[in-house]
Amino acid sequence: MYRSHNCGELRITHRGQSVTLSGWVQISRDLGGLTFVDLRDRYGITQVVFNMDDNADLCEQARKLGREFVIKVTGIVNERSSKNPNRPTGDIEIIASSLTVLNASKVPPFTIENETDGGEDIRMHYRYLDIRRAPVQQNLIFRSQLAIQSRKYLSDLGFVEVETPVLIKSTPEGARDFVVPSRMNPGEFYALPQSPQTFKQILMVAGMDKYFQIVKCFRDEDLRADRQPEFTQIDCEMSFVTQEDILNTFEGLTKHAFNALKNIELPDFPRMSYDDAMEKYGSDKPDLRFGMEFIDITDRAKGYDFPVFDNSEYTVAIVAKGAADQFSNKDIKNLTEWMQRPQVGAKGLVYIKYLPEGEVKSSVGKFYSDDVLNDWKTQAFNAETGDMVLVLTGEKEKTQKQMNVLRLEMGDRLGLIKEGDFKPLWVVDFPLLEWDEESERFHAMHHPFTSPKKADMDRMLNGDHETMKSLRADAYDLVINGSEIGGGSIRIHDRELQSKNFDLLGFTKEEAEDQFGFLLGAFEYGAPPHGGIAFGFDRLCAVMNGQSSIRDFIAFPKNTSGRDVMINSPSPIAKEQLEELSIDLDIKE
Amino acid sequence: MYRSHNCGELRITHRGQSVTLSGWVQISRDLGGLTFVDLRDRYGITQVVFNMDDNADLCEQARKLGREFVIKVTGIVNERSSKNPNRPTGDIEIIASSLTVLNASKVPPFTIENETDGGEDIRMHYRYLDIRRAPVQQNLIFRSQLAIQSRKYLSDLGFVEVETPVLIKSTPEGARDFVVPSRMNPGEFYALPQSPQTFKQILMVAGMDKYFQIVKCFRDEDLRADRQPEFTQIDCEMSFVTQEDILNTFEGLTKHAFNALKNIELPDFPRMSYDDAMEKYGSDKPDLRFGMEFIDITDRAKGYDFPVFDNSEYTVAIVAKGAADQFSNKDIKNLTEWMQRPQVGAKGLVYIKYLPEGEVKSSVGKFYSDDVLNDWKTQAFNAETGDMVLVLTGEKEKTQKQMNVLRLEMGDRLGLIKEGDFKPLWVVDFPLLEWDEESERFHAMHHPFTSPKKADMDRMLNGDHETMKSLRADAYDLVINGSEIGGGSIRIHDRELQSKNFDLLGFTKEEAEDQFGFLLGAFEYGAPPHGGIAFGFDRLCAVMNGQSSIRDFIAFPKNTSGRDVMINSPSPIAKEQLEELSIDLDIKE
Repeated sequence: MYRSHNCGELRITHRGQSVTLSGWVQISRDLGGLTFVDLRDRYGITQVVFNMDDNADLCEQARKLGREFVIKVTGIVNERSSKNPNRPTGDIEIIASSLTVLNASKVPPFTIENETDGGEDIRMHYRYLDIRRAPVQQNLIFRSQLAIQSRKYLSDLGFVEVETPVLIKSTPEGARDFVVPSRMNPGEFYALPQSPQTFKQILMVAGMDKYFQIVKCFRDEDLRADRQPEFTQIDCEMSFVTQEDILNTFEGLTKHAFNALKNIELPDFPRMSYDDAMEKYGSDKPDLRFGMEFIDITDRAKGYDFPVFDNSEYTVAIVAKGAADQFSNKDIKNLTEWMQRPQVGAKGLVYIKYLPEGEVKSSVGKFYSDDVLNDWKTQAFNAETGDMVLVLTGEKEKTQKQMNVLRLEMGDRLGLIKEGDFKPLWVVDFPLLEWDEESERFHAMHHPFTSPKKADMDRMLNGDHETMKSLRADAYDLVINGSEIGGGSIRIHDRELQSKNFDLLGFTKEEAEDQFGFLLGAFEYGAPPHGGIAFGFDRLCAVMNGQSSIRDFIAFPKNTSGRDVMINSPSPIAKEQLEELSIDLDIKE
Repeated sequence: MYRSHNCGELRITHRGQSVTLSGWVQISRDLGGLTFVDLRDRYGITQVVFNMDDNADLCEQARKLGREFVIKVTGIVNERSSKNPNRPTGDIEIIASSLTVLNASKVPPFTIENETDGGEDIRMHYRYLDIRRAPVQQNLIFRSQLAIQSRKYLSDLGFVEVETPVLIKSTPEGARDFVVPSRMNPGEFYALPQSPQTFKQILMVAGMDKYFQIVKCFRDEDLRADRQPEFTQIDCEMSFVTQEDILNTFEGLTKHAFNALKNIELPDFPRMSYDDAMEKYGSDKPDLRFGMEFIDITDRAKGYDFPVFDNSEYTVAIVAKGAADQFSNKDIKNLTEWMQRPQVGAKGLVYIKYLPEGEVKSSVGKFYSDDVLNDWKTQAFNAETGDMVLVLTGEKEKTQKQMNVLRLEMGDRLGLIKEGDFKPLWVVDFPLLEWDEESERFHAMHHPFTSPKKADMDRMLNGDHETMKSLRADAYDLVINGSEIGGGSIRIHDRELQSKNFDLLGFTKEEAEDQFGFLLGAFEYGAPPHGGIAFGFDRLCAVMNGQSSIRDFIAFPKNTSGRDVMINSPSPIAKEQLEELSIDLDIKE
């Protein structure tokens, strides 16, 4: 027997009992006559005492223990003279009577503490040491608990978890597929699923009624800091439902998760149309933890002989409350330059300061008199003395995006985001199609299976090219604190409408048949109305814990080159493997 | 709103209520003045009545409904005059007042009934129709419930579900890997995991203490009828445990599952050593639903001038109770030929019949007198008048395997296997290594991470070649009704012992370092003693339902060519995809 208890459970009520613990040496302190060892496992830390007077040999052994040695200790639970109130086991210690070293340890390359001295790279290389640290361990435990609670909520509602296949078929739509050469079918490949989309729709045609799955998905994309080639979704689909049913069900799931795991009661989630979100926040995933809504002053700003505004499609302002005397000229110069970086691409940044002394100061004061700006203060900006207004102008869509960046930056700089604040939002009424000027074709805003709103179906089947741009979809996103948690839609369940959609998206009949023929075929055998949603599970974990990186919630993440540095993968494979798979390497220099 | 209730929930207590149901038309019967429609969904079937007298138009519409049309019906719940006691909703019917066809259906290519007229191939092609059949749907629901119960049991014991990566590293040990070319790392490949073995051990080194995962695994093997390229495991690992802890925990899981889902209380599982299983049943997964244990008569059979037995390494008998007059000479001839097929490879089959009349009849009666055979009857076989004894002889290992085949066949032919009978068994004390004559090297009986028994560790580190063959491992299999449900072992957690094992298995130092260096490295930083197990989830589903094929419990299985015939995968990919992945096709004619 390795242990009678774990290192987190002994209390004063165990006083006098003989116990056996196993774990890792967190720290060993030699105080001459006494050696104290903090013994750690997943459940906590317990202090073990070796007494030179009682057992000199044992104490000598204990003195030799290094950090992260794995040991087994037997002893008597004793009440501590100086208790540690910060530790659940802090009232007791173990007076050791035997010690076994189960495994030695080299000195770890970084400290196994909540705050470690190890950088990202080394921690990933020695991920098994990193996970020993309580914050990482707690993240993984949180993740498993979120899965439990999600499954519980959905199962209680009659959802059935069905495993869809991982080896599926490549469809060169959307992101790039990872592919798997088939040994038994030379020249042919499986693909790893970017999502179980078509399979969950097939399950609805199959009458499964309510499906869910917590499932790995794969995208071979160039990785940004916060993307992973494999990621996890809570994937759902329901039959005989409207958008309203789906929003209610998954708002319920989200509330349940926050309640069960964070002890937070979320109020009902507001809803906002895609158009409103773009007008007010320049983003389809607005962070509602602070206001600073966009104020469109395009028309108001024209007619003052300032050609930049006069000729602009769109001029937009935000009000930075109380910021007038917080931002020096130099601050504003820096902010302007920050906005002019290629990643953001603003041409310039106009400010209007309503200074505490009553004065108005603006980079466009030459064109707009104090009287005009004071009129705007009340009539347009609803601003107060002491506020600063920031203005961007230019082509509408671009300027909205730039102002979104500025708004988030200002919210951050002004400290408007409170820790522990959660502001969920449903963004609804997305456009069905997006026109891409470059490729001169439509893209699906959500995906090719999304249904237009009922009112738009006729227009879709019969309308002209311009009409297509105005079609609205029964599509929706859940956004929390400016992060997209998930999205979904009511799906097309009619073969004709689905064919029309493939048409619009530029599929030839043959391509549509080749890639999605099984789904089109299924629609001919009694497909029910259905819809669904998928939550990014990694993202939800991170957002619920107020963290920005999903990597901290993944046991073995890959780096931005798609590499697992611990196991050193990917790696070359044997020539025989390539031969069996009927492929050759063809590496361009 | 598509429905107020589902098709399985209305009862006599709903009489008089106005309800809306949606579902599929199971059957429509036109009885002149009345049209009856059986409306089906996942939850059940409800009868809907259209009355020509009440609403002729509606009734005309109903007459046109075909099988598998998707419809929405509103009406009043009515008590049926002739009730159907075989159906939970059989006391009521819906008197329809409105009907909407939500989707039409072509005539399905096979009947959507519990017993269908569709063959395997067509059902797989139209799997979405096959899953509409209640038995398949129930299998998938059972599977989801088994997952729920497994997760509940393990979570309650403090196991944490951790997702291990799917894109890992190819290790050309064991079965063949599926590989995934890395676009970002030209010439390099990921592999799909055959099991999360090394990651779960890493999680133990990382201090996660108790890990589990219900997880997809992948093996690129030539597929037999009951193997799938992707399959699911309940995968577990525990720290600071002995074999006993693991057996108890997973015996508990199995009992919990049988209790929760089949309402069966299993008694404690017997244990049998690998050696005993081979001696008594010629198999490491004996079916204990019937006896018919092997009787070794090697020595007893020598000395009667019958050279076949005199010169044999091993002569073994089984007793077929009461079978003496059930098997004619022709039956025995057929059985002999069946045993002589190349798949089994027996040289011949000897019988001894203790006929009901008291006579003894045997194919070796020439060498063994009735007196001798009657002595054997009581002293060796513990047989009775009316029994038949079957004897095989030859090289021991081969003959054991042949007798295992014969025993199972006889158990089946004599009807000794009762439906609903479950006989679990732990097989323990497996050999650590298996000597392969052909390749002249050792193979790991379980896998390269399995620990020898503590008593055998010294012999392993210091013994000679012959010693290695006698090493026993802390390895165990759970067998139910002759099916291997899962297996596991205590793992090596010591770098030196692990290196020795890689040595014995023929790895060079470089190969071991290249493939498993991260694990060997991890062992140097305080690896705890640990062990685990994995259950075949698909197999457990099938065995718990007394079915032999795992395919019936997989939503979208592949055929024996590894092909998903519904989506037609694998399939060729685009030239651009190959180029991006830096690979070429190289197909041999």
